[in-house]
Order: sequence, then C-alpha cells, then structure tokens
Amino acid sequence: MAEPAKTLDGWYVLHDLRTVDWVSWKKLDATTRENIISEFMSHMEKWNEVQTKLEGSHGVYKMMGQKADIMFMWLRPTMDELQDIENAFNKSGLADFLIPKYSYVSVVELSNYLPAEKDPNEDPEIQARLKPILPTWQYVCFYPMDKRRDGEDNWYMLDMEDRQTMMRSHGMIGRSYAGKVRQIISGSVGFDDWEWAVTLYAHDVLQFKKLVYEMRFDEVSARYGDFGSFFVGMQLEEGKIADYFYV
Amino acid sequence: MAEPAKTLDGWYVLHDLRTVDWVSWKKLDATTRENIISEFMSHMEKWNEVQTKLEGSHGVYKMMGQKADIMFMWLRPTMDELQDIENAFNKSGLADFLIPKYSYVSVVELSNYLPAEKDPNEDPEIQARLKPILPTWQYVCFYPMDKRRDGEDNWYMLDMEDRQTMMRSHGMIGRSYAGKVRQIISGSVGFDDWEWAVTLYAHDVLQFKKLVYEMRFDEVSARYGDFGSFFVGMQLEEGKIADYFYV
Amino acid sequence: MAEPAKTLDGWYVLHDLRTVDWVSWKKLDATTRENIISEFMSHMEKWNEVQTKLEGSHGVYKMMGQKADIMFMWLRPTMDELQDIENAFNKSGLADFLIPKYSYVSVVELSNYLPAEKDPNEDPEIQARLKPILPTWQYVCFYPMDKRRDGEDNWYMLDMEDRQTMMRSHGMIGRSYAGKVRQIISGSVGFDDWEWAVTLYAHDVLQFKKLVYEMRFDEVSARYGDFGSFFVGMQLEEGKIADYFYV
Amino acid sequence: MAEPAKTLDGWYVLHDLRTVDWVSWKKLDATTRENIISEFMSHMEKWNEVQTKLEGSHGVYKMMGQKADIMFMWLRPTMDELQDIENAFNKSGLADFLIPKYSYVSVVELSNYLPAEKDPNEDPEIQARLKPILPTWQYVCFYPMDKRRDGEDNWYMLDMEDRQTMMRSHGMIGRSYAGKVRQIISGSVGFDDWEWAVTLYAHDVLQFKKLVYEMRFDEVSARYGDFGSFFVGMQLEEGKIADYFYV
Amino acid sequence: MAEPAKTLDGWYVLHDLRTVDWVSWKKLDATTRENIISEFMSHMEKWNEVQTKLEGSHGVYKMMGQKADIMFMWLRPTMDELQDIENAFNKSGLADFLIPKYSYVSVVELSNYLPAEKDPNEDPEIQARLKPILPTWQYVCFYPMDKRRDGEDNWYMLDMEDRQTMMRSHGMIGRSYAGKVRQIISGSVGFDDWEWAVTLYAHDVLQFKKLVYEMRFDEVSARYGDFGSFFVGMQLEEGKIADYFYV
Repeated sequence: MAEPAKTLDGWYVLHDLRTVDWVSWKKLDATTRENIISEFMSHMEKWNEVQTKLEGSHGVYKMMGQKADIMFMWLRPTMDELQDIENAFNKSGLADFLIPKYSYVSVVELSNYLPAEKDPNEDPEIQARLKPILPTWQYVCFYPMDKRRDGEDNWYMLDMEDRQTMMRSHGMIGRSYAGKVRQIISGSVGFDDWEWAVTLYAHDVLQFKKLVYEMRFDEVSARYGDFGSFFVGMQLEEGKIADYFYV
Repeated sequence: MAEPAKTLDGWYVLHDLRTVDWVSWKKLDATTRENIISEFMSHMEKWNEVQTKLEGSHGVYKMMGQKADIMFMWLRPTMDELQDIENAFNKSGLADFLIPKYSYVSVVELSNYLPAEKDPNEDPEIQARLKPILPTWQYVCFYPMDKRRDGEDNWYMLDMEDRQTMMRSHGMIGRSYAGKVRQIISGSVGFDDWEWAVTLYAHDVLQFKKLVYEMRFDEVSARYGDFGSFFVGMQLEEGKIADYFYV
Repeated sequence: MAEPAKTLDGWYVLHDLRTVDWVSWKKLDATTRENIISEFMSHMEKWNEVQTKLEGSHGVYKMMGQKADIMFMWLRPTMDELQDIENAFNKSGLADFLIPKYSYVSVVELSNYLPAEKDPNEDPEIQARLKPILPTWQYVCFYPMDKRRDGEDNWYMLDMEDRQTMMRSHGMIGRSYAGKVRQIISGSVGFDDWEWAVTLYAHDVLQFKKLVYEMRFDEVSARYGDFGSFFVGMQLEEGKIADYFYV
Repeated sequence: MAEPAKTLDGWYVLHDLRTVDWVSWKKLDATTRENIISEFMSHMEKWNEVQTKLEGSHGVYKMMGQKADIMFMWLRPTMDELQDIENAFNKSGLADFLIPKYSYVSVVELSNYLPAEKDPNEDPEIQARLKPILPTWQYVCFYPMDKRRDGEDNWYMLDMEDRQTMMRSHGMIGRSYAGKVRQIISGSVGFDDWEWAVTLYAHDVLQFKKLVYEMRFDEVSARYGDFGSFFVGMQLEEGKIADYFYV
Repeated sequence: MAEPAKTLDGWYVLHDLRTVDWVSWKKLDATTRENIISEFMSHMEKWNEVQTKLEGSHGVYKMMGQKADIMFMWLRPTMDELQDIENAFNKSGLADFLIPKYSYVSVVELSNYLPAEKDPNEDPEIQARLKPILPTWQYVCFYPMDKRRDGEDNWYMLDMEDRQTMMRSHGMIGRSYAGKVRQIISGSVGFDDWEWAVTLYAHDVLQFKKLVYEMRFDEVSARYGDFGSFFVGMQLEEGKIADYFYV
C-alpha cells in the first residue's frame, strides 16, 4: 500500500449554486420583491456577524452563463452549522426563486506534501489558512477535481516520493501567481463526488486561465488530473444585491 | 473461471433520498403542515415497533447539499416488506413534498474473504452484523461502488488468493478505525446499478474523509475501486423532525 | 471478419417502466380512481385472452426504488402489435398517472453457440422458449447488456471457437440454477441502445444476486460484459392491482 | 496526415423525434383535436407537393418505446429549407403536444472508398442516391455513429488503403441484404454530435437486427464503430394519422 | 514539465443557446408579442451601438434541430460587461420565452505556436483578430473542444516542438479554407468545461463538414482532439426577427 499524505483540516465548506427563476420573480409586485430582498439581507447580516467574530466566512457571487446565476459559499467550524444555514435559507422567501443547480461539500485542507517545520496547531499562518476569511478580490473560479486512477496513470499507486516531487513542482507554479491568484483547496473524499474542490480568487479574471493552463502542462495535472465543471463569476457586493434583482 | 468469494446475506436494504419541495410546502397553512407531520410520525412509530422487536431497522437523516435533503434507510428481512413501506410512504401526505432524487436496493452482506471459523448461522455476532440495528452515531455517509473490470485492472480476473490478500489489507484499515467509524456493507449485484453499497457512521464527520482517503491508496481501491456519488449527512432525530419542517 | 453466431428469433418484447404520479393520483376522487382502475382491468382482460390463446404474453410488476414503480412487459409475434398496445395504453386513463422512466425493445433470442441437433422449427421445446409464456415466479430482474469492444477486450474480434467455449462455460452456470432462476434472453441489436436484454425470474430474490455475482467471475462477463441499469421487483398480481393504487 | 476519403453530398436531412403529451392532448375537446389534425394534414400536403416535384422528401413514423412516439424526417436541397420547416412546424397546433426528445442534422453522403468510374454529376443513379425519395417500406431504424479514435483503435490514423479494404468488406455485407434492407447514410461532421447518421428501411423488422449484428463482427464495426441510440419504428401512413391521435 | 504555448487574449465571449417556449408564446395576444419584440429590438440597438464604436460585437442565429432554437453570441472587453448583458437580458420580456439550453464562457485567443515577428500590441491585424467584429456570413457552427490526455495520447506531455509541428500542419488545413470558412478560437481553460470554443462562419454550410472532416485525419485531431456538442445554424437577421417569432 502506498502511503497517503497527511492532511490538516479546517473549516467545512458548502458551495451552493442556483439559477434565478426570473419568470416567477418578475410576476411578483415590487413590494413583495422588496420584502423578500430585505429578509435575505437580514440573513446576510447574521452571516456578517459570524465573519466579524472570525467564526466562519461566506461569499455571494454572480456567475457567468447558464450553469448558475448565483453562487453562495459558506465556511463554518462544523458541518452541522452548514446544514442549519441550508435549512434556514431554503425556508427563506428568496430561495423560492433560486433553483438548485449544483452544490459541493468539502473541508478546507492543507496537505503535508510540503515539509512541516512548525506545530500546525501553534502556527498562526497555518491556522489562518485552515480557517480562511474569503477574499474580496473581484473574480472567483470554482471547480472540483480528482487524481486519476486509469491504467498507467494511477496517482494512488505512486510512491510518496514521486507524488511529493510532482506536488512541489505544482506548488511552485501556484506560488509564481502570488498576488495575482489566491486559492483555497478543500478536500471532499467521502463527502462529495470528487476528491477536491478548488476555489480561486483574482483581481484580473484572465489570471485563472493563465494559471490553470500553465498547470495543465505540469505532469501532476497532465497525467493525473481529472476535472469537473468550471464555474466562473464575480463578487455580488452586498450593496448591489437589490440592483441585481431589481426589475 | 475465477472462484467467487462466498457471501452471507442478511436483511434487505432500501436507501431512499429525496429533496423537500419547499416552495409547495410553504404554501400550506400551518394546520395542514402539522397534520402531515403527525401522519408521518405515526409511520415512524410503526417502524420503531418493528425495530424494537428486532424485526428490522431504519434511519432518517438530513443530508448536505442539493443532492438530497432527506435520506431514509430501511432494513427488513424480505424485499416485499421494503416494497410495502415504499408503497405506503408514497401514499402518505409528506411524500407529496419529498421529490425522489436517488434510491438504492441492496442486501446486507458479509464476504468470506476472511476465514470463517464458526457456523455463521449459530454465531450471534455474525447474525447481529447481518441484521444490524442502525447506529445512532451522529453522521452518516453513503456511496455505491464497483470492483473495476478495465484492461489490466480487472478484479474479476484475479486469483482468489490475490483478492483475499488485498481484501485483508483493506479490512485492516477498516479495523484501525474501530470506535471511530462503523460500516455496513450491502451487496447489490443483480439488484441495482453498482455492485455494493457502503453506509458509514461516525461521531466525527472528518473520520469519513480520513478513512476513505486512506483506503484509496490501498491497491484494492487504487486499482480496483470505482465509486458512485457520495452522500453525507447527519441524524434527523425523531424529536427534531417537526423543527426541520417548521416554517 | 469473425463469424457471427446464428440466432433463432421469437416473439418481440417491450419492457415499459413507469413511476406513479402519486401527487396527481391522490387528488382524484375515489370514484374517478375506481373507474380508471376498471378501465385498466379491461385492458388486462384483453391481454389475458391473448395469452390464453398462446398468441402472446405479458407481466405486470411492482419495482423496487425510485427508478420505476411499475414495469409492464409485453410479448407479441409482431412489433406492430406492441406498437398498438403502447398506443392504446397511452390513451388509457391510468397512463396519465404513470410517468415514463425507461423502456426496452427486443426480440426473444436463442443463440446457436450451443450445438443444434434438431430442426428448431419442429422442436416444440425450442418453439416454447422462443414464444414464452412469462413465469409467475414471485421476483423479476431486468437489465440490458453489451458484449465489450474495448482494446484487448473485444468480443467481436474473437474466434468463433473462443466465443463458443466461453459461452458454454457461461451456460453451465446458468444451468446450475435450474429450478431457482428462469431467464429470458432477448436480442436488441438494431432495436435499442444495448445488444441484449436479460429478464430473470426467481422464487427467492437472493438467487438473482447469487447468479449474477457468480457469472461476473466468468471470463465472458469479467472481460466482455458491460451492463446497463438493473431493475428488480415482484409480481403485481391482477387481484392486487386495486390495492396497490388504493389511497 | 492520413488522407481523408472524398465524399459526395446531397440533400440535407433533419431527423426530429418527439413524444406525444397525451395528458394534455386528451384534455382537448374532439373538435379542437380535429382542427389541429386538419392543420397538420395541410402541412403534410405541402410536403407531399415538394416530394412530387422531386424537390425533397419526408417521412412520418410511429416509434417503439418511450424514447419517442413520432419521428419526422425531412430532406431538402438546402439547410435553410429545413430551418423553415422546423420554424413553421413549431408554430403549428400539433407541435404543442409533441415534446422534443432528439433531433439530428446531417447531409446525405456517398463516400468514395469505392472506385468512381463515372462523373457523379452525370450519373443518374448516383444523383438519385444523393437526393433520395424515402422508401415506403414498413419499418425504419435510425442511429448515429462515430468512427473510433481510442488508443490502438484509431480509424483516423489508418492508411487510406486499410480503410478502403475494411470499407469494401463492410459494403459487401450491406449488399448481401439487397432487397431486404435499404440504407441512407448521411454525414454530420461539423453539423451534429456524431459523425454519421444511418437510416435503414425494411419490410421485415428482424432484418435490422440481422444486418447490424452481422456487421458488428466486421473489423470496421468491431474495432472502429461507436454507436449512439438506436430508434426503431414503422410508417405512420397519412391515412392513419387521425387514428393514431384519436382518443 | 512541458512548456505551455503563450497566448494572446482579446475580448471575452459568451455563447448563449436557448429554445423558444412556443406553447407559452403562442398563448400571448398579438399586441403583447409585438411589445416584447419591440423591447428586444431596443436591446439590439444598444448592442449595435457598441459594435459601431468597435467596443464589442454580437450575433443572433437561428439554430438547427432541438438542441437550441436561438444562439446569442456577445463579445466584450471585460467579463463584467457580459455579466451585465446576461442580467439585463434575463430581465427582458423575451427571455421569459427562451429556455436556457447551453452556454459557454471563453476569451478570444491567438496561440503563438506560430512564430511572432511583430509586437502584437502594435500589429493592427493581430488586434483585429483579438477584438473581432463577428462576420455576417450566412452560416455559423459552434463547438467546444479539449486536447486529449489519455494514456499514450496525452497532448500536455508532448514536447513543445512536437506540438508546434502538429499545430502548423493543422493551421495549413485551416488556411486552405481561406475565403470559405472564417474561424474564431476562444480559450476557456479555467472558465468553462472544455478548453477551447471554436466558432466557424461560412457562405456555404457544407464547408463546415469538409473542414472539420479533413482536420479529423490530422494527427492533432485524430489522436489529440476531444469534441463536445456541435451546434449549426444561420444568421437571424435583425429585419427578420419579427417574422421568426410571428404566429
């Protein structure tokens, strides 16, 4: 048996992607629409309070194309809190007009393919990466992925050393995008249909394409990466939510 | 022809995953909603009586993400009883608001890759594993799986001895999670689209990820495992069902 | 070019799987429901007459899980008669509450991988197998399948002799289940999306699992079998149809 | 680069498969249903006039199983005429009760793997094959297909000569069914999701199975053929359309 | 790690494919339909103004078959402008009758597998290709594609030199269609589910088939090309939009 890499695990993550049922939304009168948005804003306020106390984080994004109009992303210390958010949100008025399209359950993860020099429980930088406050950078990109197990290209049959070498090369590409792209890796083995979720942030959306394209020539992606759907979008700032839904 | 492993088979299992039609549910008046929940609780009572008599078992779970909101799991000595439960449940009021998403038909199974020392029909431990009362541990994980038949990676063309060696190594990982994860394996060859269903229980949901990730590096999973969708959730305790549906 | 096996072909077969739209069904008043069931019973009577005259056969089954609630199976000497049954059934009242889920078009087939000693047109046993009256055994299992054409595992590139040897071994497993499982093989090359349909009957539903599992280790399945969805269920006896739909 | 075969291209083809929304159709009063059928018959008349002038052809078929109830097939000298037919048909009353299920866009094609002795623009037989009036033979079979590009089995990497040899053997099977099966091959590279559409006609539906099964053992299919869904059905004669929809 | 090709990136692109909900559309009275079309024409006018100022481009096409009735294509300097167009369009009256079917997010891209002799920022020809005004040629073809990573056929593991040689041969086929087919390549790595989108224009629709078929025998497609759905259609000229929707 090949030796697995050890992982550090942080906050639980729920990605929740929905499309707006514009046909039904437009049929409402203006007052009803305003009330529904107000109610949603009060949910936002509660999420903001949690984030202010560094007890979780969240993001709301408007997404490109027909795959989804809105992506919510919630991070919490326990999966139960995510379940409560889902349940409460589904009972809210806005949820009636947000048709589920895709969701993803994972947990923020740092792999130890890279050498650990400090006690991770004491290292504030590592703790901050495990319990991240989501960046407010303008653009977001989310996709799930697997390491391939296909004939000669089987990641899980490789030696630890080979995997480590490849992951380091991979990490170096990532680091060359410092200041341009921030990434949150979350693990989902046993939680959802792929093994990892990748969430990227950038000031310039083109950096997503450059980074993912460059990585694709790296052996760890070229031979061992299998990718799910890519979702790209941008911040839906709190102050612009009413505008987004205004008809 | 390779020699198949013999299996012991116990209770039949139906996993039934549904999403709540919140839009329609919220349109009901409070009394109608209460009546529907009452009717559902009387179904629960009957299922509880069966379980008290050790003539079957069941679980109700709230699931994470959009794949499903609720998972029912029923175990009975005959498939006919499961059919009757399905039929009765579909006629109940709550079923009108629970949209089918996924189901799975299987039978609790113990494989004899491991040496059998006693007569399984006499061994109370084996009998208890074949007719399990579902754990009340907080978290649940369910996924179907196959053994791969793909070019060089064909489980069903291997010698019994090779399969046995690999399954033992696999079993040892499982056993190292004793007290952390309980698993119910049920076979579904000839019953449903995958060959097995795996249902896991844990007090700490992170243990699912650790176990499944560690197993993935084991040859039996790395080369021979194909996995369906993963569903993760938590107990929806009887006393909290009304709350879950309260709007 | 590899030599194909010759086949004998009998009655045409339509498998038709549907789910009950319980929400709409329950909204009807009792009299309307009774009238609809009566009308359906008169369809059944016509089908029964055909079967009594040995001019066709049919079965009605209640299926496990969400894939389908009801499976109809009709056999007739011509495909045109199956088309007429479909058309008439779709116009019936009950069809309004039976949502199509899956169907399959095939023709009962005997392959001559096994040596033919008699003139099949004269042999009453062969004629009975080509024009089968469906067993009333309690349980039914239906699945479509292909012979694989994938790299080294290409059934259609094998010599006739190799195929014959493998099919004989396969047939011997089948025969070892005599009295436990009855099977109807129907060919669907050029008719539907897979190459064959397999319909099994048993008194003990566990025999489906045992048979299919044992066969999976046989080279003809292990290397050359690709399988579609498995549907399992049980007889919905004529006298119990009203009960099944009673609410 | 391997040399492609040259093709001759004729009329454009649209296959259009739909299911009848019987629930809604049955709710109409008899007069409305009759008016809708009358309007459809006037569309048929226009299509008939085109066919009489040999400026196109069409067919209407009742299909087996749940994949589709009705298949329309239209052939015209330009794709624009097919677009106009689609647009006009979608605006007709009957289209409201015919739910789209599958469609396919292609152009009648003759490949020149076979030696060309005459100028195809002058040869009346070739011209008739490029602009075919659809046969009125009782049964129809339609399926799309690809030539495989998978590891060692890559049609597009073969020498012209190898492809030619295999296509000749393939053509000889086809010719051995002369008088039993007529086929129309249409190319769809760049037009739709598969590379070719195959439409077969027979007086005896069993001949589809015999032909396609025999061809599957031919190397060109066994190693290089990938097939989409198979749709089988029969003529819905003009005089029987009203009957088909009569309730 | 293999060296990736550098790319020049231009305008962002949104392909948006929808089907008309004819059933609902036909139920409107003529005045309502006219008002909706008028409102849509005012959207068109705004898009036209942008195009006149060379600050973006767009196209509206009527598509063949059931995959989509209408395809919109918008190009803008930023992804945010595309998001605004989507949001505004979804709020328009016509959008209520245009059911989403498929969309694609990409950015116009020139790869530098071909030698760069000039500064691309200064070269007006390159700038025009990066910010293209969409051709008004009659026919359009759109499909997404990947470079394959499968066993021995792994584009991303090849040397730069090998890729360059193959891309040049590929480019030469493309150039031999000059005047017959115009192509816009847009990259979507990190933006959508495939790696590139290809949009072709022609005066003669048959040229799409000829070009794509010829390219399929080129090693870069034969061994390394994986293709998504193909969508084919034609200009829906501004002056004919009212006609298209007239009932």
